[in-house]
Amino acid sequence: MSFTRPEPPYYAVIISSALDAADLDGYAAMDERMATLGRAQPGYLGRESRTDGNGRELTVLYYRDAESIEAWKQHPEHLEAQRRGREQWYADYHIEVAKVERAYGFRRQK
Amino acid sequence: MSFTRPEPPYYAVIISSALDAADLDGYAAMDERMATLGRAQPGYLGRESRTDGNGRELTVLYYRDAESIEAWKQHPEHLEAQRRGREQWYADYHIEVAKVERAYGFRRQK
Repeated sequence: MSFTRPEPPYYAVIISSALDAADLDGYAAMDERMATLGRAQPGYLGRESRTDGNGRELTVLYYRDAESIEAWKQHPEHLEAQRRGREQWYADYHIEVAKVERAYGFRRQK
Repeated sequence: MSFTRPEPPYYAVIISSALDAADLDGYAAMDERMATLGRAQPGYLGRESRTDGNGRELTVLYYRDAESIEAWKQHPEHLEAQRRGREQWYADYHIEVAKVERAYGFRRQK
């Protein structure tokens, strides 16, 4: 639990992706820029992300509402990053926009 | 993309978890049993999962509908696994049930 979530409903963008190792020139800088810019967008709540040993990443980005997701998707710098991602960096990705209806958790008492 | 998803709407269960390394006795066997049993449940569609180098796992389980999720949550063997998980294996977990409203993807042409 890397951030404090609000009570549902809120939104999740589930991103499963794999980089194409053939040409990652410029990727790290763009990834960092998008992370910084993305965090500053209205409605952004937080993220969970894991990358396995084969470079496959699973990330969930959380937002207050669907409008915030659409606004970020259409952000000019983000559109350019998406274009370069498809042309150069990603082998594949799959993205789902989902409305979180229920949430619960557990933390061991120390 | 480890499985073929249907057209939305369908459901996602987003699970962010960390094991407690102190006592993992029995965990691997139970984890495998739950994966086998879980795959056989009505409405189960597939999963995406990544584990980072620190034992933090991010898994998304996909289901046809919310009723399938609730039925699996209440399955007697799964209830017992959940109880042992809280008592023995997990340091923490956070679970969200979300309705996938939109989905799209990209795959590089070879």
